[in-house]
Amino acid sequence: MPGISGAAGVCFRDLQPPEEQCTKEDLLLAAAYVSDAQYNRNVPFETSPQTIRLYYFYNHWTMRAATNFFIFVDLSLALFEKPALFPLPFLATSIAEVLCLTAFFGRLVHFAKVTPQMVFWKDTKNICIMVTIVLTLIDLIVYGSLEAVNIHSVRWSRVLRPVFLINFPESRQIRRAFRSIRNTLPDILYVFLLFIFNMLIFSLMALKLFGDRGLKTVEGSPYFTNILDIAFELYVLVTTANSPDVMMPAYDFNWWYSLYFITYIIINTYIFMSVFLAVVYNNYRKHLKNEIRKLAYLKRHKMIEAFNILKVNVGAEFVVMEAEWKQLVKVVAPDISSSHLELLLRISDEGQKGHVDKMNFLRLADLLNIQVITINVKRHPLEAWIPQVYKSSVSLFIQKMVQHRIFVWIYDVIILINAIFIALDEKNTFVSYAEWLFLSLYIIEILLKLYTYEPRAYFGKKQFWNWFDMLIIIAALVATVANATIKSARQYNSQQMLDIVLVLRILRLLRVIISIQRFRVIVTTLINIGPTMLTFGGLVLVVYYTFAIIGMEIFHGKVQFFDPNFTTPDALVCGNPALKDTAFARDRYCKNNFNDLASSFIVLMELTVVNQWHVIAGGFALVTHQAAKLYFIMFHIVVVILIVNIFIAFILEAFFVAYSLEKSEVETAIEKKIQELGVGVKEEEVQDGELIDIMDTKDRSFIKSDGDRKRKALKGSYFRIASKKYKTVDALLQQMFESEIAPEDEGPSLDEILNFSPSDIYPKNPNFENSA
Amino acid sequence: MPGISGAAGVCFRDLQPPEEQCTKEDLLLAAAYVSDAQYNRNVPFETSPQTIRLYYFYNHWTMRAATNFFIFVDLSLALFEKPALFPLPFLATSIAEVLCLTAFFGRLVHFAKVTPQMVFWKDTKNICIMVTIVLTLIDLIVYGSLEAVNIHSVRWSRVLRPVFLINFPESRQIRRAFRSIRNTLPDILYVFLLFIFNMLIFSLMALKLFGDRGLKTVEGSPYFTNILDIAFELYVLVTTANSPDVMMPAYDFNWWYSLYFITYIIINTYIFMSVFLAVVYNNYRKHLKNEIRKLAYLKRHKMIEAFNILKVNVGAEFVVMEAEWKQLVKVVAPDISSSHLELLLRISDEGQKGHVDKMNFLRLADLLNIQVITINVKRHPLEAWIPQVYKSSVSLFIQKMVQHRIFVWIYDVIILINAIFIALDEKNTFVSYAEWLFLSLYIIEILLKLYTYEPRAYFGKKQFWNWFDMLIIIAALVATVANATIKSARQYNSQQMLDIVLVLRILRLLRVIISIQRFRVIVTTLINIGPTMLTFGGLVLVVYYTFAIIGMEIFHGKVQFFDPNFTTPDALVCGNPALKDTAFARDRYCKNNFNDLASSFIVLMELTVVNQWHVIAGGFALVTHQAAKLYFIMFHIVVVILIVNIFIAFILEAFFVAYSLEKSEVETAIEKKIQELGVGVKEEEVQDGELIDIMDTKDRSFIKSDGDRKRKALKGSYFRIASKKYKTVDALLQQMFESEIAPEDEGPSLDEILNFSPSDIYPKNPNFENSA
Repeated sequence: MPGISGAAGVCFRDLQPPEEQCTKEDLLLAAAYVSDAQYNRNVPFETSPQTIRLYYFYNHWTMRAATNFFIFVDLSLALFEKPALFPLPFLATSIAEVLCLTAFFGRLVHFAKVTPQMVFWKDTKNICIMVTIVLTLIDLIVYGSLEAVNIHSVRWSRVLRPVFLINFPESRQIRRAFRSIRNTLPDILYVFLLFIFNMLIFSLMALKLFGDRGLKTVEGSPYFTNILDIAFELYVLVTTANSPDVMMPAYDFNWWYSLYFITYIIINTYIFMSVFLAVVYNNYRKHLKNEIRKLAYLKRHKMIEAFNILKVNVGAEFVVMEAEWKQLVKVVAPDISSSHLELLLRISDEGQKGHVDKMNFLRLADLLNIQVITINVKRHPLEAWIPQVYKSSVSLFIQKMVQHRIFVWIYDVIILINAIFIALDEKNTFVSYAEWLFLSLYIIEILLKLYTYEPRAYFGKKQFWNWFDMLIIIAALVATVANATIKSARQYNSQQMLDIVLVLRILRLLRVIISIQRFRVIVTTLINIGPTMLTFGGLVLVVYYTFAIIGMEIFHGKVQFFDPNFTTPDALVCGNPALKDTAFARDRYCKNNFNDLASSFIVLMELTVVNQWHVIAGGFALVTHQAAKLYFIMFHIVVVILIVNIFIAFILEAFFVAYSLEKSEVETAIEKKIQELGVGVKEEEVQDGELIDIMDTKDRSFIKSDGDRKRKALKGSYFRIASKKYKTVDALLQQMFESEIAPEDEGPSLDEILNFSPSDIYPKNPNFENSA
Repeated sequence: MPGISGAAGVCFRDLQPPEEQCTKEDLLLAAAYVSDAQYNRNVPFETSPQTIRLYYFYNHWTMRAATNFFIFVDLSLALFEKPALFPLPFLATSIAEVLCLTAFFGRLVHFAKVTPQMVFWKDTKNICIMVTIVLTLIDLIVYGSLEAVNIHSVRWSRVLRPVFLINFPESRQIRRAFRSIRNTLPDILYVFLLFIFNMLIFSLMALKLFGDRGLKTVEGSPYFTNILDIAFELYVLVTTANSPDVMMPAYDFNWWYSLYFITYIIINTYIFMSVFLAVVYNNYRKHLKNEIRKLAYLKRHKMIEAFNILKVNVGAEFVVMEAEWKQLVKVVAPDISSSHLELLLRISDEGQKGHVDKMNFLRLADLLNIQVITINVKRHPLEAWIPQVYKSSVSLFIQKMVQHRIFVWIYDVIILINAIFIALDEKNTFVSYAEWLFLSLYIIEILLKLYTYEPRAYFGKKQFWNWFDMLIIIAALVATVANATIKSARQYNSQQMLDIVLVLRILRLLRVIISIQRFRVIVTTLINIGPTMLTFGGLVLVVYYTFAIIGMEIFHGKVQFFDPNFTTPDALVCGNPALKDTAFARDRYCKNNFNDLASSFIVLMELTVVNQWHVIAGGFALVTHQAAKLYFIMFHIVVVILIVNIFIAFILEAFFVAYSLEKSEVETAIEKKIQELGVGVKEEEVQDGELIDIMDTKDRSFIKSDGDRKRKALKGSYFRIASKKYKTVDALLQQMFESEIAPEDEGPSLDEILNFSPSDIYPKNPNFENSA
């Protein structure tokens, strides 16, 4: 198909490499170029069939999956290398690594083939990958040859592995988060310096005030006598991890000294930490706005370009003729049904004049993005199959009962009783039989619902709660049956299986949330932001991985974990006499060590939560060197001050968008038009299985108002208006921003758009809403 | 003066009681009423001279100060009542309390005299105060009579004392903060319930997963066997205070169980706590916007009313004649100089047509609020006194040197060297002599600056940094001299004096901040929000006081503090055998008790910081009852989840306003006009002593463009444009909002304005800026 191959070219000649799939506007623009013979000669990019085939192959999901697989393998190697969770010989891991590197190199070569030379070499991402591959190979060779002559060296290139995760085009979101951090750095630096300066001033004060008093800490060590120790203690106090212990000796000595600590906490913990959040949040918001503005204008720009290619002069204005328009839509969306096409045309060509004007043409990409549903015409299969039974009075009574509010309430009560039974002792046979009763009650509920509601509507693509309900029950059923089978067969409970059954049984209680509307709203918002939260997962993975590799090099083997029941002197000090009488050993933190990747990740998680991090840092500093504390401080700055704050900023922003939407209907012009035509269905209406009723009403009113012809053409097709409930924050913001651009606004030029900078996003006189 | 007495009436008949001083627009409106004979007959409020005298007396600063004093005394009584820091007999404290109550009652009666009956009785604040007075009296009598027959009862009315602090009209800001909390409650309630529900589900899971394993905590007690204990531990885990200890036994037992805790922390600590912040922040922002909108429209409304009274028809439009306008201004600002008046007229009556049009009249209140400075014409007193010396080449060289950048750098280096000397050992005589050297260097610096810059400009009202500089140096000088005197006289160091000297000496180092521009900006923002932060101080005081009184009733005497050097068994368990082997005793928290008001406040501060709060809660639960934990959980919810989050929201908002201002000049129309006329001076220009130069330039250009006549009239007067740097967040937001209202917009009616609700602040289609 000529249009599509052109489309690849358009995505492709864009100044940025193809980070995502082509959007609808890219496809439209490409199709416009191709369909117009006049332009066909000077299409501004190469379309040799081979390049395009290569390009498609590059973007094929198998190739993407393979890349991700090799990245995963490369990162997992740390589990098998010394210090290993599952040790493998060096030869095995190094062969695996070389394999991965080859795959990465192949991917890169492939990318180079489908990208203009200049663009490829300009992109730092590609350079990064190449340099990392070379460095890793060098490291492998050096380490391997040294190992061969029994000299142990450091596999330093392992730290570089996350580079592959970040730099392949698939990880756009993670890169964006990193960009966000990088952009925040200059602003946060000054606040951080001021904070450090302030901390040093307070350290000096503490040294002078408490240093000569001869005070002792609870452990009996001298209190506040060394300026470096004081600075560390005060840094820890900012994280609140050693409050109030650090204050107690001074406070015991004199009531008034507590004022010093209270002042310090107010200034540094409360004010400075809030300022950090403010700086991070402000930057996050600024860059988010900028990216969205860029996207919105880029889209507008492409649509205008496409329009300009296809336009013909009719009367006083430029328009696109119906035939050309239809051809274009068919090229871009080959699978479109004719009724759907008819609907789109009716919306785009209001007056049925046989052509589409500019304003309506610009909306075409959005229009194509709106889902069309046809489920409405379907009746319950049982109704078609055994109508006399399904429509009998008993059956109708059951359906009415299931739809009734009281049905929900009864099951809520059942769930609560179930919760009490779960809390009761398992060994009681009565209790364990009750479990089967509850399980069957839940299954009956689901069957009743399936009987009442049309199954395909009930398990629609986005009926999250119904799916959740169903899966939890089925999983519990399977696990319980499996457990019972194992138990009766082998006469003992499998521990893992039992744990899973228990967890599933309790998760079932979450169903109560469904019946409380306010809870549902909160949870839906949380679920919506879930995918983006995964981005933070990727970000955290990269940082954790780097720190874990470094941590394993520095700390591995220094702290040993013994079985908790061992009480040998060695076990009590985690196998390291240096830890004798420390808080680390006393609190039994021996398992918090860097002896393998998994343990390291858990330690880093504990450090992220912050509490007791000074105990862990202190312990590891004792078994190595005091300078090791720097590792932990660096981790705190990177993860807690930067990443956690960005995470909070992200959640704040997501909730603000959700809140402002709750109050106001944001409808794009298209959505309004669809509603006017009476062919729109809101997501919420689909939600509760009330769809058929609505459809009936709408169908009827439609007939009345529009006559039979149109009804025929449109019957069975309804636009599902992408609900605000299931949109991402980005999509919502973009929609809001677009509703701000005037339809006749041509927007800035392409160069200007691509060079938008966040600092000029503020209008000269910012309006009230902006700042308040 | 008739105008002013009317003004009191206007402020006064407003639907709200006079919570603050009359604003300029109130005065203008009142003056308009009075000056216009035709309206004089039907002024819509009573102006009997006695009422007005009473009103003035009510608002007099001595009366306000007296009220505050009695509130202070009333609250302080807790220091002297059992359990007392400084015990006084019951008779003494009860007499003092009755005195305070009398004063409050008197104040209330006074208020009733100057307020319309209906308004007075409608106001819940007044009812609150009356009820509290009566309840306190009843409690005093009951407690006193029981005490007389030696029965000890509870002085429960002490909890009500903060009511006086909140409900007197002077505490508008604290009430606003309370309103903010109250408004947030419904929204936060559902999130909180969901959070609790989620926590209970996890508790149930923990009971099932870990309850039967026979695991032990580090202290050797059974691990996760009781559902209530588990729920408490998991609540503590949300605050991160017991991480990772709570996880360790399960983690030691099996690696996989750490996933349970990690999931819990991600969901509850990170996501839910951020959602709490989002909810609180969203509400805070919504209500802030609403209040500001109300104020802005109210101002507009009053100015339009005043204009309508005074307007006459000239040509096609309604205007206010110059004579009437001047009379009005003179009534409102009796001390205005004639050159100032001339300036105002020139700005208001651009075309010098002899009358002021509506748009310019509406701005009059803002115009009157702008400060006028006349310092510019002043020369350095030494120049006037000994011009030949001051203008000599040596003197000029010194002045140039002091103004030079290198001078600042040299002193920064000196400060850094000073910091090193402070860190060195005090006892070294060389070091202690160096201290005198540094002190004299700083004094020389200040003298040099005073020699170079005009002293009154240098110590201008808002030259915060110069004042700071001066005060720190002088205080250090005085303290050092005093200390040296005491030392030489009595041959020993006074400990308190020495501490003060040390602190002052170190605070001097903060001067480095002044020379780094970026630091200065951050600190200035922090200083600007300082006054509002004090509001939070008031709020925290009220909550702390209430909790402290309750805490003292429940916990006093249960835990004893012994001298830290005591190692008797009793001292080791804080005088309570129940605490044997607990973390509370082991960490030596004996001084964290509720035995007097001051100690209680410090314990509450520690609970606010959160870390180790479960140890304190656990300790007090052991010496009383497990239910005592509820007291600590309540405190956590009120202070940490609500107040601290509001505080963070406030700082975020303040910084966002500061950031968006940094990027864009928000100038009101008036400020623009003033700049156009060349008679404006920006705060920043005044800042660095460069004023005179600027003035000279401006004076000269002024002559050129406007001729001599005007220069004469205006010479010596310059408008100081209220700098954004020293405005409060509220004022800035109001200014931004006003620049949004079109000049011809009459705004909604008074009733509508007063009934503005935050929920209709969202426009139907919120713009992009609003939500992003």
